[in-house]
Amino acid sequence: MPPTRRLSVTRVTTEGQASVRALGEDEVAVEEPLELRVEGESLLVTMRTPGHDVELAAGLLYTEGVIDGADDLVAVAHIDDPADARGNTLDTRLAGGVRRGETTLLSSQRAMFASSACGICGGATVDRVLGRVGPLTTPRRASPELLLSLPARMREAQASFAKTGGLHAAALFDFDGVLEVLREDIGRHNAVDKVLGWRLLRDEVPVDDRVLLVSGRAGFELVQKAIVARVPVMAAIGAPSSLAVDLARAAGMQLVGFLRDGRLNDYSATIG
Amino acid sequence: MPPTRRLSVTRVTTEGQASVRALGEDEVAVEEPLELRVEGESLLVTMRTPGHDVELAAGLLYTEGVIDGADDLVAVAHIDDPADARGNTLDTRLAGGVRRGETTLLSSQRAMFASSACGICGGATVDRVLGRVGPLTTPRRASPELLLSLPARMREAQASFAKTGGLHAAALFDFDGVLEVLREDIGRHNAVDKVLGWRLLRDEVPVDDRVLLVSGRAGFELVQKAIVARVPVMAAIGAPSSLAVDLARAAGMQLVGFLRDGRLNDYSATIG
Repeated sequence: MPPTRRLSVTRVTTEGQASVRALGEDEVAVEEPLELRVEGESLLVTMRTPGHDVELAAGLLYTEGVIDGADDLVAVAHIDDPADARGNTLDTRLAGGVRRGETTLLSSQRAMFASSACGICGGATVDRVLGRVGPLTTPRRASPELLLSLPARMREAQASFAKTGGLHAAALFDFDGVLEVLREDIGRHNAVDKVLGWRLLRDEVPVDDRVLLVSGRAGFELVQKAIVARVPVMAAIGAPSSLAVDLARAAGMQLVGFLRDGRLNDYSATIG
Repeated sequence: MPPTRRLSVTRVTTEGQASVRALGEDEVAVEEPLELRVEGESLLVTMRTPGHDVELAAGLLYTEGVIDGADDLVAVAHIDDPADARGNTLDTRLAGGVRRGETTLLSSQRAMFASSACGICGGATVDRVLGRVGPLTTPRRASPELLLSLPARMREAQASFAKTGGLHAAALFDFDGVLEVLREDIGRHNAVDKVLGWRLLRDEVPVDDRVLLVSGRAGFELVQKAIVARVPVMAAIGAPSSLAVDLARAAGMQLVGFLRDGRLNDYSATIG
């Protein structure tokens, strides 16, 4: 299934005081459900833009702590079933001994709050992530010059966004600013999982040698995924959240926001 | 807890070929976990911007099909427990006989796909929503002139966004363009739940007399929430997804996207 679809639309524009209508066609981002199974058992259903489904599955299992590397993932493929003609179901087979269920980040957050000093709070959420994977052991910093060059390079590579305006992008760059991989999805989490899953399927995790750029905002969950994958530098075109900054600082990650128009904010500051 | 927080930042700007750094402060949107309980039992943990938590809980229970109106919600309040000093836990009490669990939209989507003709697919997802609540029975249409006037009115009322650039907004307007209520949140779903929950707590659902405007994109899940609340017109500053358009058309909702800069796209077209 292609990542965009054409459909009819009525366009309204303003000319002086009057509005003008015209029938036409518009290209929108495709959103379809994907069911991810682990050894035949349904793990979750998520909305995503079709394409690079195997990378999405691999990345999601990795960034949510179900698997630690390519060796843990024996097989991942669309199921061979006429009832799934749309290709919206993936099944995976894990190596023996791979933990699943309650001990992953994906599992319910409830249990961990029970023992937290602050009850349900952002601090406990940060502690949970770092308790699972620890802070980054090989922090790196990207220069402002490098960072400022990335948005234009990402936009050049974004084919679908230009058509629909409706897709988030995530991209990995090396520290010379060379684009390694870019993926788009209606869901910002999926775009990040797709690029990190691409690396996992090449048996190239941790991703401790790349800068991750995301087209939107940097919330807690995106930073969490990057930290699990050991990404040392994450940059966002949009704004970060408070908890994203807290987590990045605690993990020793360089977190950059508002990377656009020749400017950026670096939230890795050591003061305050 | 206030919806924004100040923290230190290094700002980098470009002057000619050189980049200039300056230490400063930045105001970011607060993101904290919220646990929602139903009669003491944990239903979910979601990331949200603190503030209007009771509205968020009421709206979420309503738009996800747990409750149908104010009468179903006997009580909703922050728990009175020193361990939850941050106010991140809400408990709710429902009226006797209110369904919960498996029959709500919030419950696992897996069961419903089992009997679907297309397996896992967008069509089954649309059918699930309309099977639960049916199409809109009192469709209304907003004029282009009315719609084009709304973004400026919403932006005027958005206090926190101006400070952080990191909050999504949702607002209800009447058909004369008068703003009724606006809420902001780091999560776009939460902003929508807060305005619809505000209506539910006033015992003013269904919301079949208002236009819902959202600051970002219109994905399937946002349109689903609006349709459950019987909102006849939904407009987004950003792009819609394919499945959002499919659902809006099937339900008889007017769905408008790219509402900005004196233009809009109306996806309620009857052709194609």
